Amino acid sequence: MHYNFSEMIDRRHTNSVKWDVAANELPMWVADMDFRTAPGIVDAIKRKADTGIFGYEEVPQAYFDAVQHWYATEHDWTPDTDWMRFVTGVVPAISSAVRRVSHVGDNVLVQAPVYNIFYNSIVNNGRHVLSSDLRYHDGQYSIDWADLEAKLAEPLTTMMILCNPHNPVGKIWTSAELTRIGELAAANHVVVFADEIHGDITETGYGYTPFASASSVNAANSITAVSPSKTFNVAALHAATLIIPNENLRNIVDRGINTDELAEPNAFAIDGSIAAYTTGAEWVHELNAQITANKQALTQVIQQRLPQLHVITGHATYLVWIDCTAVTSDTTALCTFIRQKTGLFITAGSVFGGDGHDFVRINVACPAERLQDGLNRLVAGVEDFQQSH
Amino acid sequence: MHYNFSEMIDRRHTNSVKWDVAANELPMWVADMDFRTAPGIVDAIKRKADTGIFGYEEVPQAYFDAVQHWYATEHDWTPDTDWMRFVTGVVPAISSAVRRVSHVGDNVLVQAPVYNIFYNSIVNNGRHVLSSDLRYHDGQYSIDWADLEAKLAEPLTTMMILCNPHNPVGKIWTSAELTRIGELAAANHVVVFADEIHGDITETGYGYTPFASASSVNAANSITAVSPSKTFNVAALHAATLIIPNENLRNIVDRGINTDELAEPNAFAIDGSIAAYTTGAEWVHELNAQITANKQALTQVIQQRLPQLHVITGHATYLVWIDCTAVTSDTTALCTFIRQKTGLFITAGSVFGGDGHDFVRINVACPAERLQDGLNRLVAGVEDFQQSH
Repeated sequence: MHYNFSEMIDRRHTNSVKWDVAANELPMWVADMDFRTAPGIVDAIKRKADTGIFGYEEVPQAYFDAVQHWYATEHDWTPDTDWMRFVTGVVPAISSAVRRVSHVGDNVLVQAPVYNIFYNSIVNNGRHVLSSDLRYHDGQYSIDWADLEAKLAEPLTTMMILCNPHNPVGKIWTSAELTRIGELAAANHVVVFADEIHGDITETGYGYTPFASASSVNAANSITAVSPSKTFNVAALHAATLIIPNENLRNIVDRGINTDELAEPNAFAIDGSIAAYTTGAEWVHELNAQITANKQALTQVIQQRLPQLHVITGHATYLVWIDCTAVTSDTTALCTFIRQKTGLFITAGSVFGGDGHDFVRINVACPAERLQDGLNRLVAGVEDFQQSH
Repeated sequence: MHYNFSEMIDRRHTNSVKWDVAANELPMWVADMDFRTAPGIVDAIKRKADTGIFGYEEVPQAYFDAVQHWYATEHDWTPDTDWMRFVTGVVPAISSAVRRVSHVGDNVLVQAPVYNIFYNSIVNNGRHVLSSDLRYHDGQYSIDWADLEAKLAEPLTTMMILCNPHNPVGKIWTSAELTRIGELAAANHVVVFADEIHGDITETGYGYTPFASASSVNAANSITAVSPSKTFNVAALHAATLIIPNENLRNIVDRGINTDELAEPNAFAIDGSIAAYTTGAEWVHELNAQITANKQALTQVIQQRLPQLHVITGHATYLVWIDCTAVTSDTTALCTFIRQKTGLFITAGSVFGGDGHDFVRINVACPAERLQDGLNRLVAGVEDFQQSH
């Protein structure tokens, strides 16, 4: 490997949200990696810093060309650059789109268990969450198509937020699944917002399909959000792109992101993103190899030392979703116990809704050495929990 | 002087909004300076870049301490750090506060001519602009107190956006004026949003008074926004601070900035701001000396070569407001003519409302050499306009 994914970087006292923990604690919760980003990004930021002038910025064509290049070379999809809009983040863009595309009191459909912040974007704007819960059967998740169709058909359902690939279950939706979702949504006049922020993080040998690339129906009825944020560990770069092939929908959303002041980049967002998308491919491929290995290591430890747990097979994201039903149906209590006893800080699944209360989510985007520390704590914590409950 | 404010930096093709102009054009419009920022800020950004990890960021106490230090040492006001909230920008915060503090259909009071983006924040959110126009008499601006009181007393007036110091007229409001505004607002249950982004840019020998520092009534009924943005030429740092002494009002606004996703800093906002506020004082004092000299140079050229114009005496901001009544009452036509004939791009006053159509605004935050180029173009353009109209 060219790049180093084993350096144990001390992130305490760096204003990191993830690492705002006690001295003995080990955070493996929020989607933030313990790896240094790709060196091309750092170089680009330092070059921009050297200019010393950080006035109002425009988004150049080179930015959109870089996004297009990345999707063409990494994901076999060449979105037109005219379809793209820069935004300062995926979550603010979801909130903005909720306000423009749906109305107060409408239903916004999600598929629980799902990224918890979707709920905030819906509820904080006076819309209602309508979940077509993913079906969990034989240790795997799938879509309940009849339920999804019925809920898309409800008159007050005007928008769907799709998580592609799916956080927290790690599932890569197939092109056929995406096409079917798109057809059902379009038939029921429901606009699909596809959050594809995790799309680049796939296990070696796997790739994701952008929702809008799956069919012309999907393209015509969707807003896709992408970002280097998860891929390159640059959440605080505050850079994302909306891709909206439908001109009318694009204009509606464009008005929203401007009114909500999400369309102006900070001084480092553009150069950092261009560097990511034009110089970062090999870094991401090596990152994915490391994450693949970490997921395998975790799965092996759980199979051998915690066979009462079940790791969900998801081929995307660096977040692992683990069925704890055999231990408890209140993983919030379990996670609190583990944190108190071992210092390991993982995410209790209930925040994601649906059957999340039976699950925990573990972030494995860290050096193998740190992962082993976390897994040892996990084993000790679960065993201790079972002995004392 | 320690710092160099005479370097002629080529900002073309740097994604600068200000410098997105034709090859022969000279932009002296938007509030963005042609000076490199203070070196401590660049150093802090590069140190942060070197860490290579740009995950989710928290705002540390050191940030608020730095803001407090700056206001204590520069403006004789020591706001409690508990009153402060980080936001990604003043304008997004104004929009957010408009949505939380007033209701759809309410009046938001401004004092035209005033910073044009205030109108967007009001109108885009379904509120109405109610202006108590500044009175222009004998070449100076003042408040029409009876008109202000009557408009604050209108039942639908629930919020006032104060520009302190005032852009575009450059006026520093006195403590007595601020106290009187605060009393009238409080008596009529109108919350004051004080945009103080230009507060640090004052002519040598002058200083501004923060609205909330003028009286306890003001403090209890106001939201103050400050930022290193104008002061240090770091608009794209995306960093600002709200100061809200009243706990209930602070909680209301806090809820808004979180829902609107304005509360999370990018990777460079915190370290850049701390460097500005703790290492940048001398740089600002020298900057102010340069701007003072530039305003004097502009005033002298206009007195000598364009005596038909009148420069408004304002002791704050690097924006000069010039009465062109003797030439035209349609400065939009004048500015278009000047740009076409000479390439000088200045701001026609009509965007600021009120009597703005009689005025132009010129940004003098540039090296003296560039200012002279601009003034020569201005003289030629105005003379040519008068000969051909």
